[in-house]
Parts: sequence; C-alpha cells; structure tokens
Amino acid sequence: IRTGMPEVIYCEGKTTEQVAKIFNSLAASGVNVLATRANAEHRQAIFAAEPRSVEHVAARCVTLKQNDLAPRPGRIGIVCAGTSDLPVAEEARVTAELMGNQVDLVADVGVAGLHRLLSQHHRLQEASVLIVCAGMEGALPSVVGGLVGVPVIAVPTSVGYGASFGGLAALLGMLNSCSPNIAVVNIDNGFGAAYVATLMNRAY
Amino acid sequence: IRTGMPEVIYCEGKTTEQVAKIFNSLAASGVNVLATRANAEHRQAIFAAEPRSVEHVAARCVTLKQNDLAPRPGRIGIVCAGTSDLPVAEEARVTAELMGNQVDLVADVGVAGLHRLLSQHHRLQEASVLIVCAGMEGALPSVVGGLVGVPVIAVPTSVGYGASFGGLAALLGMLNSCSPNIAVVNIDNGFGAAYVATLMNRAY
Amino acid sequence: IRTGMPEVIYCEGKTTEQVAKIFNSLAASGVNVLATRANAEHRQAIFAAEPRSVEHVAARCVTLKQNDLAPRPGRIGIVCAGTSDLPVAEEARVTAELMGNQVDLVADVGVAGLHRLLSQHHRLQEASVLIVCAGMEGALPSVVGGLVGVPVIAVPTSVGYGASFGGLAALLGMLNSCSPNIAVVNIDNGFGAAYVATLMNRAY
Amino acid sequence: IRTGMPEVIYCEGKTTEQVAKIFNSLAASGVNVLATRANAEHRQAIFAAEPRSVEHVAARCVTLKQNDLAPRPGRIGIVCAGTSDLPVAEEARVTAELMGNQVDLVADVGVAGLHRLLSQHHRLQEASVLIVCAGMEGALPSVVGGLVGVPVIAVPTSVGYGASFGGLAALLGMLNSCSPNIAVVNIDNGFGAAYVATLMNRAY
Amino acid sequence: IRTGMPEVIYCEGKTTEQVAKIFNSLAASGVNVLATRANAEHRQAIFAAEPRSVEHVAARCVTLKQNDLAPRPGRIGIVCAGTSDLPVAEEARVTAELMGNQVDLVADVGVAGLHRLLSQHHRLQEASVLIVCAGMEGALPSVVGGLVGVPVIAVPTSVGYGASFGGLAALLGMLNSCSPNIAVVNIDNGFGAAYVATLMNRAY
Amino acid sequence: IRTGMPEVIYCEGKTTEQVAKIFNSLAASGVNVLATRANAEHRQAIFAAEPRSVEHVAARCVTLKQNDLAPRPGRIGIVCAGTSDLPVAEEARVTAELMGNQVDLVADVGVAGLHRLLSQHHRLQEASVLIVCAGMEGALPSVVGGLVGVPVIAVPTSVGYGASFGGLAALLGMLNSCSPNIAVVNIDNGFGAAYVATLMNRAY
Amino acid sequence: IRTGMPEVIYCEGKTTEQVAKIFNSLAASGVNVLATRANAEHRQAIFAAEPRSVEHVAARCVTLKQNDLAPRPGRIGIVCAGTSDLPVAEEARVTAELMGNQVDLVADVGVAGLHRLLSQHHRLQEASVLIVCAGMEGALPSVVGGLVGVPVIAVPTSVGYGASFGGLAALLGMLNSCSPNIAVVNIDNGFGAAYVATLMNRAY
Amino acid sequence: IRTGMPEVIYCEGKTTEQVAKIFNSLAASGVNVLATRANAEHRQAIFAAEPRSVEHVAARCVTLKQNDLAPRPGRIGIVCAGTSDLPVAEEARVTAELMGNQVDLVADVGVAGLHRLLSQHHRLQEASVLIVCAGMEGALPSVVGGLVGVPVIAVPTSVGYGASFGGLAALLGMLNSCSPNIAVVNIDNGFGAAYVATLMNRAY
Ligand SMILES: Nc1ncnc2c1ncn2[C@@H]1O[C@H](COP(=O)(O)O)[C@@H](O)[C@H]1O
Ligand SMILES: Nc1ncnc2c1ncn2[C@@H]1O[C@H](COP(=O)(O)O)[C@@H](O)[C@H]1O
Ligand SMILES: Nc1ncnc2c1ncn2[C@@H]1O[C@H](COP(=O)(O)O)[C@@H](O)[C@H]1O
Ligand SMILES: Nc1ncnc2c1ncn2[C@@H]1O[C@H](COP(=O)(O)O)[C@@H](O)[C@H]1O
Ligand SMILES: [Mg+2]
Ligand SMILES: [Mg+2]
Ligand SMILES: [Mg+2]
Ligand SMILES: [Mg+2]
Ligand SMILES: [Mg+2]
Ligand SMILES: [Mg+2]
Ligand SMILES: [Mg+2]
Ligand SMILES: [Mg+2]
Repeated sequence: IRTGMPEVIYCEGKTTEQVAKIFNSLAASGVNVLATRANAEHRQAIFAAEPRSVEHVAARCVTLKQNDLAPRPGRIGIVCAGTSDLPVAEEARVTAELMGNQVDLVADVGVAGLHRLLSQHHRLQEASVLIVCAGMEGALPSVVGGLVGVPVIAVPTSVGYGASFGGLAALLGMLNSCSPNIAVVNIDNGFGAAYVATLMNRAY
Repeated sequence: IRTGMPEVIYCEGKTTEQVAKIFNSLAASGVNVLATRANAEHRQAIFAAEPRSVEHVAARCVTLKQNDLAPRPGRIGIVCAGTSDLPVAEEARVTAELMGNQVDLVADVGVAGLHRLLSQHHRLQEASVLIVCAGMEGALPSVVGGLVGVPVIAVPTSVGYGASFGGLAALLGMLNSCSPNIAVVNIDNGFGAAYVATLMNRAY
Repeated sequence: IRTGMPEVIYCEGKTTEQVAKIFNSLAASGVNVLATRANAEHRQAIFAAEPRSVEHVAARCVTLKQNDLAPRPGRIGIVCAGTSDLPVAEEARVTAELMGNQVDLVADVGVAGLHRLLSQHHRLQEASVLIVCAGMEGALPSVVGGLVGVPVIAVPTSVGYGASFGGLAALLGMLNSCSPNIAVVNIDNGFGAAYVATLMNRAY
Repeated sequence: IRTGMPEVIYCEGKTTEQVAKIFNSLAASGVNVLATRANAEHRQAIFAAEPRSVEHVAARCVTLKQNDLAPRPGRIGIVCAGTSDLPVAEEARVTAELMGNQVDLVADVGVAGLHRLLSQHHRLQEASVLIVCAGMEGALPSVVGGLVGVPVIAVPTSVGYGASFGGLAALLGMLNSCSPNIAVVNIDNGFGAAYVATLMNRAY
Repeated sequence: IRTGMPEVIYCEGKTTEQVAKIFNSLAASGVNVLATRANAEHRQAIFAAEPRSVEHVAARCVTLKQNDLAPRPGRIGIVCAGTSDLPVAEEARVTAELMGNQVDLVADVGVAGLHRLLSQHHRLQEASVLIVCAGMEGALPSVVGGLVGVPVIAVPTSVGYGASFGGLAALLGMLNSCSPNIAVVNIDNGFGAAYVATLMNRAY
Repeated sequence: IRTGMPEVIYCEGKTTEQVAKIFNSLAASGVNVLATRANAEHRQAIFAAEPRSVEHVAARCVTLKQNDLAPRPGRIGIVCAGTSDLPVAEEARVTAELMGNQVDLVADVGVAGLHRLLSQHHRLQEASVLIVCAGMEGALPSVVGGLVGVPVIAVPTSVGYGASFGGLAALLGMLNSCSPNIAVVNIDNGFGAAYVATLMNRAY
Repeated sequence: IRTGMPEVIYCEGKTTEQVAKIFNSLAASGVNVLATRANAEHRQAIFAAEPRSVEHVAARCVTLKQNDLAPRPGRIGIVCAGTSDLPVAEEARVTAELMGNQVDLVADVGVAGLHRLLSQHHRLQEASVLIVCAGMEGALPSVVGGLVGVPVIAVPTSVGYGASFGGLAALLGMLNSCSPNIAVVNIDNGFGAAYVATLMNRAY
Repeated sequence: IRTGMPEVIYCEGKTTEQVAKIFNSLAASGVNVLATRANAEHRQAIFAAEPRSVEHVAARCVTLKQNDLAPRPGRIGIVCAGTSDLPVAEEARVTAELMGNQVDLVADVGVAGLHRLLSQHHRLQEASVLIVCAGMEGALPSVVGGLVGVPVIAVPTSVGYGASFGGLAALLGMLNSCSPNIAVVNIDNGFGAAYVATLMNRAY
C-alpha cells in the first residue's frame, strides 16, 4: 500500500540476534531496509549479517538501499540547535533520504543566537516542508514557523535536565506554539517526523 | 507573506466590543476574516458590526469572505467519532474552507464501531490530507492512519471526563500512535489543524 | 478460599535465594506454583531447587503443576499488537493456563493494520473473555471491544518511549475507552488480567 | 450484536432539546432506553417528551423499559462507602437493572469501619460479580476483593478534595490493588462498571 | 527595612470591605500603597475609601503615591507578545513605576513575527534589566535573552488552552531556556518580576 | 535541644569514606549514632572504623548505643503488609528502639487478607502510637486507623510497579484516608515516622 | 470506641436540608456535634434547626457542645502565616477546642518575616503539639519544626496561584521537610490535623 | 557581545574526546574557558589536553583563566544547607569567580536550624546579590529572602527522595515563595544562577 517506503526495524529493546535476523529476512525480500535506535552492537551484528548495509553512526541507524525511488518534487529542511539534538536530526535525515527526499540539514541555529538562524534564512525558504528538532525549551519551531510559509514538523528532544522532565517541557512548548503552521510528533521521534514530511513531499 | 490566508481573531477572553472592533477593522482592510471560539454574544456583536459576516454555530466561528482564492489541488478529509467532537471538527472545516480547500467531513465513525468507519473507506482514500479529531482515548487517528497513505493531522479534543484530564489522555495517545503518518496539534485546536493541512494542500 | 488457584511468587526485587526457597516450600505444600517476573538467574535457581518446575522464557515465568484442575467452560482470548508486548501477553497466557483455562493467543494484530486484526475476527468471537495488551497509544482494547460482546480486560504495557511515560499514555487511553465493555488493570500486569479473566470463566 | 442491551444517551454537554429528541427517537424504535448524567432539566425534558420514562434522581438517570429481558443467572453486588459515592453506585444499579440483572446495593461500608463491612459479608458472598465504588483513598475494592472469590469491578469516584485530585488518588489506588481479582473503570463511571459486570453475568 | 518600597495588598480572595479597610489603614500610615489583582468591585471600594487612589484598569491595580522616591539609575524594559499577556505586563509596569523605576513597555512582539521584535531591538538595548511576559509556549524570554547582555526576568502567563495547562507549558519552557541570562517567577506574577527587577536597578 | 535523640547520618549519596569518618567523629563525641540507608559497603566501612557498631541488614542501618535512655511510657506498633515493605518497617523499628521506645512489629497483614490483620487486633490495641508502612495502593493505614483510637503515622513505600509511580499512588491514598487519625510522612521515610512517633511517646 | 469525640458532618456537596437534618438527629442523640465546610446557607439552616448551635464564621464551622470533656494535659499550638490561611487554621482551632484541648493560635508569622515568628518563640515552646498551616511554598512547618521538640502536624493550604497547583507545592514541600519532627495531612485539612493532634494530647 | 564572559562547555553527554577537543580549541582562541558537569574522566582528559587548566572536584568543573577581568563592584553571596547541595553551590561559586566576582559561600545553614543561619546574618548583608541552593522542600530562599534587601536567585537542587520527585518539590516551593525578591532557575543549575547574578553585579 505505501509503495516505496522502506521496511523499518526499531532496535531498542531487541537483542542483536533478533535485529540481525529481522534485517536479513527483510533484505532477502528485496525491499529497502532501515534500522533505527541501533547501538554499536546492533550495527555490527547487522553488518555481519548483511555486508551491503550502511552504518550511520550519528543517526544510530543502518540502511540497506536495494531499489531506486522516484524523485520527490520538493526538499525537506531539517533544523536543530546544537550538537545534543543532532542524533534526532540525523535520524530524520537518514530516514528522509532513504525515502527518496532531497534533504538540507541546518544545524547550530538555536533561538538564543538569532543571527546564526537568520543567516540561514535562504536555506529555510528553499524547503517544501521543515522538520525542526529542539530540546530544553523547544522554542525553535515557533521561531522557524514564523519565518516560513510551509508546514513545520516539530520534534521535541529529550535534551536537557531538571525541569525538562525528559523532553516534556519541549513537547508542551511545541504543542502551544503561537505559529499556526506547526504539528508535533513524539519526543525524539526523528523517524516519524521524516515519515510524515515525506508524505507531504509529493506531487498531485 | 502567507498570501491568501485570512486574518484570524481568537475570541476567547476578549469582550464583545473588542472582537467586533477588530473584526470591523480587518474587514475594512479588504482581507478575508475568521473569528474562532466565538460564543453567541461574540457572534451577534460581529454580525451587528459587519452584516456581511456569516455565522457558523456548530463551529463557534464567524467568517467574512471578500476575496476568491485560487483553487487548491487536493481535498482535506476531516474525521470524527461523535457529536461531542463536532465543534472541533467544524472549526477545522470552516477554517479549511475559508482557506480555499475542498473539504469532506466524515462524522460518526468511532473506533468502537469499525464497520461504520470501514464503510466510509472510499471517502478517506480521496483525501490528500486528513484531519482526525477524537477525545476520550484518542484512538481514531491510529486506525485511520493505518488505512491511508497520506499525512494525518491528529486533534485531541477535551471530550471526556475523569481520567481524560481535559484531553490529556487523547493527546498522549496520539503522540504515541503506532501509525507513522501522524502529527499532532494542541487539544481542541481545529483551527491549527486546518492551517497546517492547508499548507500541505498545494501543488509544486 | 480461592480453591484451585496456584500460589504465586512475584520475583522482582527478591534475591535468587529467597525466590528458590519460597518456591520450594510452596511446592512441598502440594499446590500448583507460579513464579512471575523471574529473570534468568531466578529461573535457574528455581530449577536447581525444584527440577520438576517448567521455565517459560518469553513470559519470564516458572510453573509447577502438581494438581489437575476442573475444566472451565469457556476460552480466554489474549490479543496483542507486536513483539514488544509479548512478554506481558505471555505472562497472561502462562497464568491463565495454570489456572485451568483454555487459551488462544492472537499476536501481531495492531490497530494500524486493521486487516490483520479483522482476519482473526473468528478467533476473537470464540473467546468468552478477552485480554488485550497494548503499549504506546493503547488503542487495541477499544477496537477489539467494539468487535465482541464479551468482557475485555485491558492491560496497558510500558512499551513505548518519550510521551508514553512508562505506560501512562496507554493506561489513560484504556480508562477512557469509548467501548463500554472494558475494564483495566495495572501497567504490564498480565498476571492480574489472567486472574480476573479466570474468575469470569466459570459456570453458574 | 449486543442483543438486549438498552440504547444509552450520555447527557452531559447536550442541550435538553438534543437529549429529549434522541430519547424520543430511540423510544420509537422499540428498544429499552437509558439516559445517564441527566440533570433536573434533562430529566424533565425527557419526561415531557416521553411520559412513560422513569426518573432516577439519585442516579441522575432516566430509563424506559419496553421489553422484558431473559433473566441472568447471577446477582451483581454493588458496594460503596458513603452518601457521597451514592450517585455513582446508583448509576451502576439503574444500569445493571435495566440490563436484566438482579442487584444488591450495599452502602455505608467504608474501610475505616470494618465491622459494618464485615456484618454484610454474607451479602458480598452471594454476588457473582461485585462493583465497588470508592472515592478519597479508594481502598474499598482491595478490602472487598480479599473477602470474595469473584471478579471485582472497581470504580474510583471524584469524591474528595485537595490531594484527591478529582479522583486520581482513588484511581491509582485501585490500579495498584494488592487483591488480584480487581479491574478498574474510569473515574465516576458507574455505567461502564455495570456494563462490564452484566457481560460477566451470563450462563455458558 | 526595604525603604521606599510600597505596601502591597493582594486582593484576590479578599472581600471589598477587607481590601478597602487595609488600603485605608496603610494609606493613613503615610506610605505608598499598591493593590494588585483588584477586580472592578475592589477598585471601586478602594476609591470610595480613598479618593486620592488611582485606578489602573488594564493592570487590575490601584495605587496611592504619597511620597517621592529617589530616582533609580537604569530603565526597566517590559516585553510581551500580545493583548492577552497585557494584564500581566501592565501589573509589572504599574508596580515598577510605583517603585521609582523608569519603564519602557514593548508590546506586540511575539516570536512568530521576529521582524516586529527585531525592529524594537534598540529599545531592548536601552534597558538595564528586562521583564519578559509570555504565555503559550513561553519562548519570548529565550529569544530576547539572546539579544541582550542584561538580566531577563521571565514571567510565564496563563494565556493559552489545552496543553498549556494553565501556564505550565510556558513555565517549563522558561526554566529550560538555552539563554543563560534568565531567571523565572511564578505564573502571572508581574508584581514579583517588577519587585526583583527594581532591586537590580540600583547604583552601588 | 532534643536531648537523648541520636545523631543521624543519611548514607545515600555519600562515599564509604565520608560515612565512616562522620560515624567515627560522632561516636567520639559520646552520643548514640544511627546510620540509615547504608548499603553493604557503607556498613562494612563503619564496622571497620567503629567495631562497637551494630549492623541491621534488613533495615539497612548501623547503630551505636553508648548511652542508656530514660524509658518512654508507651509502645510503638509498626505494621506492614509484606516482605517488600520490611526494609522501611525495619528502618522505623531500629530508629524507634535506638530512641528508647518499646516496639512491636506486626508484619504480613495486608488489606487483602483481613483475617490475618484482625487476628493481630490485640497487638494493635496495645500500641500508644502506630506506624503503618504500605506500598501499592497504600490502604493499610485507613484500615488500621479504623481499628484503633491512637495516632497513626502512615509511611507510603515505593513498593509496586506501573501506576504506583514510585510510591505516589500509596502517598496520595494515605493523604486522602477516610480515617481521621492519620498523618503522613515522605515515601519510604521509616526514619521520620519513628522520629515523630517517638516525640508522641512521652509523659506530660 | 473514640469516647468523647464529637460526631462530624462534612457539609461540602450536601444540600442545606441534608445538613440540617443530619445535624438535628446527631444533636438528638446527645453527643457533641461539629459541622465543617459549612457555607452561610448551611450555617443558617443548621441554626434554624438547632438554635443551641454556635456558628464560627471564619472557620466555616458550626458546633453544638452538649457534654463537658475531661481536660487534656497539654496545649495545642496552631501556627499560620497570613489571613488567607486563617480559614484552615480556624477549622483546626474550632475542632481542637470542641475535642477538649486548650488551644493557642499564633497567626501572622510567615517565613519571610522571621522576627515576627521568633518573637512568638515562647508560645511555640508551650505547646505539646503544633499544627502549622501554610500555603504557597509551605515552608513554615520546617522552620517551626526546627524551633521545637514536639510533633508538628503540617497542613498544606490551597492558598496561592499559578505553580501552587491548588496546594500541591505546599504539600510536596512539607513531605520533604528537612525537620524530622513533621507529619502531613491533606490539603486544607484543618479538621484532620486537629483530630490527630488531639489524640497525641493525652496522659498515659 | 558579552565581553569578558568565559566560553562554556556543558560536558554531560559528551565523550572525553569531544570535551578535550572543544576545550583545547577554545583555549587556543585566547578566552577564559569553563567546563561544567565534568566527571573525573572529563577532567583528566581536559588536563591532559591543556595542562594549565584547573580542576574543581567538588564543583565538577574545570577552568582556564587566561585573561584578567575588570573588578565588579559587589559581592555575590552563595548560601546552601548541607553537604548534598554543595556540588550545585560550588558550580555557582566557580562560575561566578571566573566571571570576575568576589564570592562568599555560606554553607551548612538549613531552615531547620535557624540559629546557624542567623549567626551568619552579617555575611548575607554584605552581598549585593544572593544565590540560594536548596533541595528537599526548598525553603531556604524564602527565609533568606526575608532577611535581605537584595535580589535572590533560587536554585532548586535534586537532593531528596520520594516525593521530592527529582527536585520538583523544591522548584515549586521556590516559585511560590512568599518573599517577593526571588527569581528561580532550573533544578541544579548553579551555572545559570551565577551567570544571572554576575549580570546584576555591575556599575551603571
Ligand atoms: N481556535 C484557535 N486555536 C488556536 N489558535 C488560534 C485559534 N484561532 C485563532 N488562532 C490564532 O490566534 C491568532 C489571533 O490571536 P489574537 O490576535 O489574540 O486574536 C491568529 O493569528 C491565529 O494564529
Ligand atoms: N455515564 C456514562 N459514562 C460513560 N459512558 C457512558 C455513560 N453513559 C453512556 N455512556 C456511553 O456513551 C454512549 C452514548 O454516548 P452519546 O452518543 O454521546 O450519548 C453509550 O453508548 C455508552 O457507551
Ligand atoms: N532515612 C532517612 N530519611 C529521611 N531523613 C533522614 C533519614 N535518615 C536521616 N535523615 C535526616 O537526615 C539528617 C542527616 O542528614 P546528613 O547530614 O545529610 O547525613 C538527619 O538529621 C535526619 O534528620
Ligand atoms: N551547568 C550548566 N547548566 C546549564 N547550562 C549550562 C551549563 N553549563 C553550560 N551551560 C550552557 O551550555 C552552553 C554550552 O553548551 P554546549 O555547546 O552543548 O557545550 C553554554 O553556552 C551555556 O550557556
Ligand atoms: Mg532548544
Ligand atoms: Mg475518541
Ligand atoms: Mg499499541
Ligand atoms: Mg473511600
Ligand atoms: Mg507566547
Ligand atoms: Mg499495600
Ligand atoms: Mg506559606
Ligand atoms: Mg532544603
């Protein structure tokens, strides 16, 4: 039904054997495969089982691309503030690219340093849909949302401590955004953000 | 910047005088105008001030359409379970229509009566983007999400009592959906859902 | 008083010595014995102490059946979505079987893939009582509840991350179900669900 | 599908006109009808529309019984502590009776006065299933659960103040009950408890 | 001890008689007096009791200035996004002015419209300390904090609905701000923000 | 000021060196000493430093009694349900005994087995003050409170899983007790309960 | 069993007719009677039904004293910070006096003005048990607890706004007090505090 | 823009290699450098990379001071209760000193022992701004705030257990302080408190 979408394995809580075995059998079925939340052991086990697989360390992902995809019309912009949010942003990037999107990842543009964000304004303008990852107060989607006229998928991250309560502060902030062009996915859910963004990036 | 979008007044917490005055001055500027969360008094005051305005009782909205909009390529499907969720679904419908979308509102299709939902399957398939409003356990977006290949904007509603905690149960449910094509807006935010859905409903 | 019910040991937080010793003395008293939440060490210690005991790895349980039970009239259906919910579903299965029930475990039927669930409809219909385990948004009991005319015991699981808050999202969802034939037990409490379901599965 | 069950109207949030109109049309279809959470105005409007309807003030319900039901084999016991929990207990009683059950309502038996509870022990023993309503600390289901060998449906009520947080304290207490024969429904949901209990009260 | 500070009456929860009486007796003692959270009835009762008192409708305050204050060296900037946050911002302004500060109130500068905020950059630069009031996602203090080199007192407001949970979302956002020059006061506490800001606005 | 009370060391979060050193210097000052929340390493280090110290494994405590205490008039009863609550009950016992109280610890009397509790009724009656420790639903203090005419100090424990939320369910239950003779201390705070109970156990 | 204790009616949520009727029948039985949380209508209805009853406006209570009580050995000190906490403190005072205690109520001694508290030190010293009521941050019991050697019953009040969350902030503060001589009752529960304190105020 | 402020590295969640590399490159740029939340491995790695760096064990910080700073006019007082809060207080001290402030750290002055606090009154009076760190009930800022006429930055710490919920109790207490001269930063955020305090410590 969802032609062209890869098969996906969520590795957290699975053994290396389970992950490698599922990866292998999906690979054998001929589709593209994506493993997310894969730690170093998961990634080695997959590589041992399927040497054509590609490891994405920062994203904690493994991919296997066996089929080319029809190009999609627009570009997905991914925006995040700092190095701590990068694993989530990279998960979104790897997912989006494996789903056939052109991606532009704009990092190091937090709301406390507006000049850095504004100096990348042109890159934001070129995206057909934006994924914005932010932890702590989660303010970045509101600010980015005000700068663009396209949908913004906001991803709260669990980055922070104390009253961030594992990403709750960022999540609530994004749900209450005063920019009306924002919708939100689960905390740290870079994969889901890329999935929804991909569905938006299609011609009619 | 957001050409074609109406100007919007959020009426809750504003006096009838304030609302009528803002509506009038926006009307005078020549744009389309939308007032949301307008109670009966608000709506009467607006109508007295601007007799061309149109009242939408179920949606608690008032609109003034002064300009035609370029047609948008797809159709927005709006889905809800019962009569209690209708005010939110109607807010989404009125907003989406004023923003130039074709809308199809599918009501009375809760998850506890799958046959009613499945009998509307063809209408779900014809939407380019879906808005799904649900209170209580908020399960409808997951089920609808599994039936379609387009983005789903989930709107938790404050319908329920006891452990629904004002919509929190539905909100958490939607954020944790096992359907990957879902993004969420604030509780009861039919307006925001329609706004994001409108941005998705465009040609490249 | 509760004739026929096994004696039960909850192993979490107990040492292997404590668990083995309690198991042994219960075994000596001649009753059936069930150890739940037993990790690998617990299970080995029990086996060393009582070689007639049977290990259930997926359920994290150990059982000792010394007495036959009068057959119960109906069948308990157990339903879950994915591999992650299996430990809880298996705990329910092992418990229910040791309590003299016929059990049918229907796995891999999440709400985001209705066709798989509907293809098992006949199995749901044959149950006198259903136990439905689900994590994340916890929507499965509502959908199953709408398909059957028997009581549904809903078990929220701690499967999920971020805004699942350790099973809270699933718990709240189930408590707010729009299917009226649902009652809920504690997060991950497969044992309790089987216990209540067993009490329902009796002739008058 | 659920033969014999009445049609139910949840009145809260509906206008008197809406409620009276729905009641009337359900009555015309020949089935038994139950209106819950009906305030005085709702009840008068229903009576004006359908003079055969019967008002249950303490339960905040209205019923119309047009059809006799096959008798059910067992008896439903309903237990509550004080006058404050009575509206919920009465909602359960009215619902259960309209669904064809024999009901025995045991009131005024809180956990802080064990002798009163113990003096009713024989009535608890005669029930095939028990509904226990309790607010504040919600301890009654645990105590009752320990006295009987049948399933207990626990109904937390919103009775209390301060740290009861609208019934949350009672709800959490019941979910964590150390009696294994307990399942829980939503806060104040006497209707749902009676519905599930009715489904348990059937011959095979 | 705190020479020069006015005596303050918090009116919420007090009767008009209580408020008027306390105001009068403080006035008689010769000090400056401030009444906050005063509704229309409170304000009329105070005016009847003390005709020299001055009403501040938008701030819901009444003041009586009987003594001149030594001028303070700097200026307090107060920033807020929209009309809904104005009552809190005005409470801060009235408080700060009665405590002898020069105040500059910059309204209508939300984070979703950065150009409006940036066009007021020079006014932000001229403040020795800033008070930033924001509801909903509460992102404004982070953005303002990044633009200035002075302390920012962040005031979460209860403006919003749904997942704003009465200002909790804004509060958590501000506590997790990635701008290090921010400290936070209670939800809607314009008075406290002005009090702390006043203490910072002094020469050594 | 509090003559006769031992000096107390809370070991959690302290190194073995720190704990041993503090213990030693308090011992040298001639007072009685109590170390709580001491793990095996803490306890060994204390014993190495002060061979007169006495280890209480179940209570996770170490004591040093150098001075006799004037006898106190009454007896402190300590009540708990199961083995999991024993560490907290034992912390209370060791503390109370070192403070000069006679203590009677009644274990294994949960609310789901009233007969066991009632069979100990005479022991409850002989206490001048009761400490009741309970996890999960925390119902035991309400039931015990109804059986006695003396003050009950309720100690919620963190025993439980899922919706017990680390003792929150028990805590809320105890705060909402329908027995009026109950006051509550922090989760797992056996020490504090014994301290308050000791202060109650004095002649006038 | 609890000889000498008055019979108590909790009026909130009861009609004036219910309250007056219960009061009357308790009065007829010859015991002392206490009605708490009685609003003006409740109090008038009780007075009409029982002219010997005494109204306590600030405490929102009505009492009827028909029997003298044996004097109790000690004095109960009640402490609170401001006028807002007085209704709770007065409820405690009226309750304690009707239960035969000598009471000393020390008001207007908040933690932000230590000199006022310290100037009442001698009155604190004369109490055999202290009840300390505080809203907002709920810090007063910790400070008072450090000044005395007797048990302190802490009563969090719902006084405050914003992040006080209806008394939750004060409740949590009191449960985490660093003074070990503190136990806590429910938010606004002046009655319960007095009840427990009375039980402590007895000779052996 | 913030001339004179050091560059800061937040080490938690970074590898030793990352931390050492960032430290080195910042050092090379000639500025002062501060590493916070540095564990023993982080600190060794930094020292190996930059032997001029200074380790602050109690504060879990490393500093490198390459430039002298213009002296600031006032003194920052830092106050905390016990040894457990010291890491946060030390982080504040190290940060404040590297930013050019004179600092006076007053430890061991909890609210349950007022005499120790009052005996340090003169040191509190000499500060131009105070940082008060407290865990558990977080009452210290309110008490200190009442003793001084300068701004107080309150830092809730995660010290405590049970109902302290990781510092939430202290945080809520501080936000609800009845002393009006208090503003709050995130749980355990000694760095942020020192940063804001530094900005206040400047001449006009
Ligand atoms: N129902 C609604 N829910 C959420 N936001 C809304 C709603 N209606 C309007 N808005 C937003 O509120 C803004 C207007 O707010 P205001 O200026 O206070 O009337 C609009 O620009 C919209 O972005
Ligand atoms: N008191 C109640 N609590 C919970 N659910 C109820 C209650 N009364 C009725 N219902 C459910 O609400 C449905 C009717 O809702 P509605 O169509 O909105 O009137 C019924 O089918 C019941 O399942
Ligand atoms: N188990 C415990 N729970 C709560 N507080 C305790 C406990 N043990 C000791 N305390 C308190 O902690 C103080 C000692 O703390 P510390 O100086 O950090 O060792 C004592 O004075 C007691 O009041
Ligand atoms: N202990 C701390 N708590 C909160 N924020 C900090 C702390 N230490 C450093 N920071 C902030 O974190 C930033 C550096 O973060 P990073 O680039 O991830 O190392 C600095 O600019 C500070 O504003
Ligand atoms: Mg961020
Ligand atoms: Mg729904
Ligand atoms: Mg699920
Ligand atoms: Mg109860
Ligand atoms: Mg805002
Ligand atoms: Mg228990
Ligand atoms: Mg207070
Ligand atoms: Mg403290």
